[in-house]
Amino acid sequence: MKIYDFTPAPNCKRVRMFVLEKGLDIAFEQVDLLSGEHKSPDFLKKNPMGLVPVLELDDGTCIAESVAICRYLDDVFPEPPLTGTDPKERAVIEMWNRRVELGLFHSVGGYFVHTAPFFKDHVRQRADYAEDLRETARKQLQWLDQNLGDRRCIAGERYSIADITAQMVIDLGTPSVFTVDDSLANISRWLKEVSSRPGAAALAAKTPAADNAAQGA
Amino acid sequence: MKIYDFTPAPNCKRVRMFVLEKGLDIAFEQVDLLSGEHKSPDFLKKNPMGLVPVLELDDGTCIAESVAICRYLDDVFPEPPLTGTDPKERAVIEMWNRRVELGLFHSVGGYFVHTAPFFKDHVRQRADYAEDLRETARKQLQWLDQNLGDRRCIAGERYSIADITAQMVIDLGTPSVFTVDDSLANISRWLKEVSSRPGAAALAAKTPAADNAAQGA
Repeated sequence: MKIYDFTPAPNCKRVRMFVLEKGLDIAFEQVDLLSGEHKSPDFLKKNPMGLVPVLELDDGTCIAESVAICRYLDDVFPEPPLTGTDPKERAVIEMWNRRVELGLFHSVGGYFVHTAPFFKDHVRQRADYAEDLRETARKQLQWLDQNLGDRRCIAGERYSIADITAQMVIDLGTPSVFTVDDSLANISRWLKEVSSRPGAAALAAKTPAADNAAQGA
Repeated sequence: MKIYDFTPAPNCKRVRMFVLEKGLDIAFEQVDLLSGEHKSPDFLKKNPMGLVPVLELDDGTCIAESVAICRYLDDVFPEPPLTGTDPKERAVIEMWNRRVELGLFHSVGGYFVHTAPFFKDHVRQRADYAEDLRETARKQLQWLDQNLGDRRCIAGERYSIADITAQMVIDLGTPSVFTVDDSLANISRWLKEVSSRPGAAALAAKTPAADNAAQGA
């Protein structure tokens, strides 16, 4: 199997964090978003949405969508489990991953879609709406801090894909959208612990020339 | 177990369709969104996001987020399977469910969030952005039609949660956002087949007084 990747893109980081946490040895092949390679006929055969990441299986099946890729990897390589091990744990992790993704990530990602130069030819950028999204993202982060409380991890006591999504989006949003300071005591405590995990190495990966593209891609 | 529900809300319809397709006998309890019951202290204990649907298990655990609820039900009551039966099928269904949800549903839902009276006290409604979302939704539906091709169902030959999400969002978006006509030949053919399925009964459920709230809640 092989993963089509663009290192600085948030959803690619999420998959790479997942791979690092599971200790898997999977080949990553770069797709150059800056030259439009993801919209080429060859790549559109792999993902007709023209997005990375994509996991290509040995039989040629292509799995797009970061969470679908992570779920597949957890199914096929069960240890350590990152999406839960029984129906209730799987549901709670899915719930928290979706809360972080649909609430926080979509606000932060949307902010960059409406402000970053990379997206200006792809969407009608609205600066006023971007400010609404920034405000929403800050409220979502406060909500997450309150609801994290003294739990060790986002979805419970065990580290999961919900932590990966939260680490990725907090890294993405800092400092343009928000800053994690002492007023977010629970998030601060959690972030300190997870920042030393193996997956966090993926967050450091940046391609300087691609900084604009990285935002929200 | 019990499901907290508001019949006309799209995500509630999605869960009810899933329950009907699986032939399950689960109690539904209405939460009155129009009077703000979902923001009451009692309900916030069940879902601190203040959203329906919520599945309450017999041990008191509350699972929010429609897809997490569906996944739990498929885990505990495996027949008929609606989220896949092996790693590859599960991943392909997850990929398609996310494409329909993140691409089509979020555009259609966002359109109503920015236009429907129910949301005017909850978000800063932007009519110009709503028009962008309508345009995006129409493009997404055309994309789905092209990519459905002659497949029987959204994610393959077997009916799945991806079909449920697509049925729900097409019902929601018609006719305010788009109309499915002969120009969408593949979607038309698919819609004709799935409209006679057991789950489709959930789409007919409307509370007349709640029509505004129904849009995108």
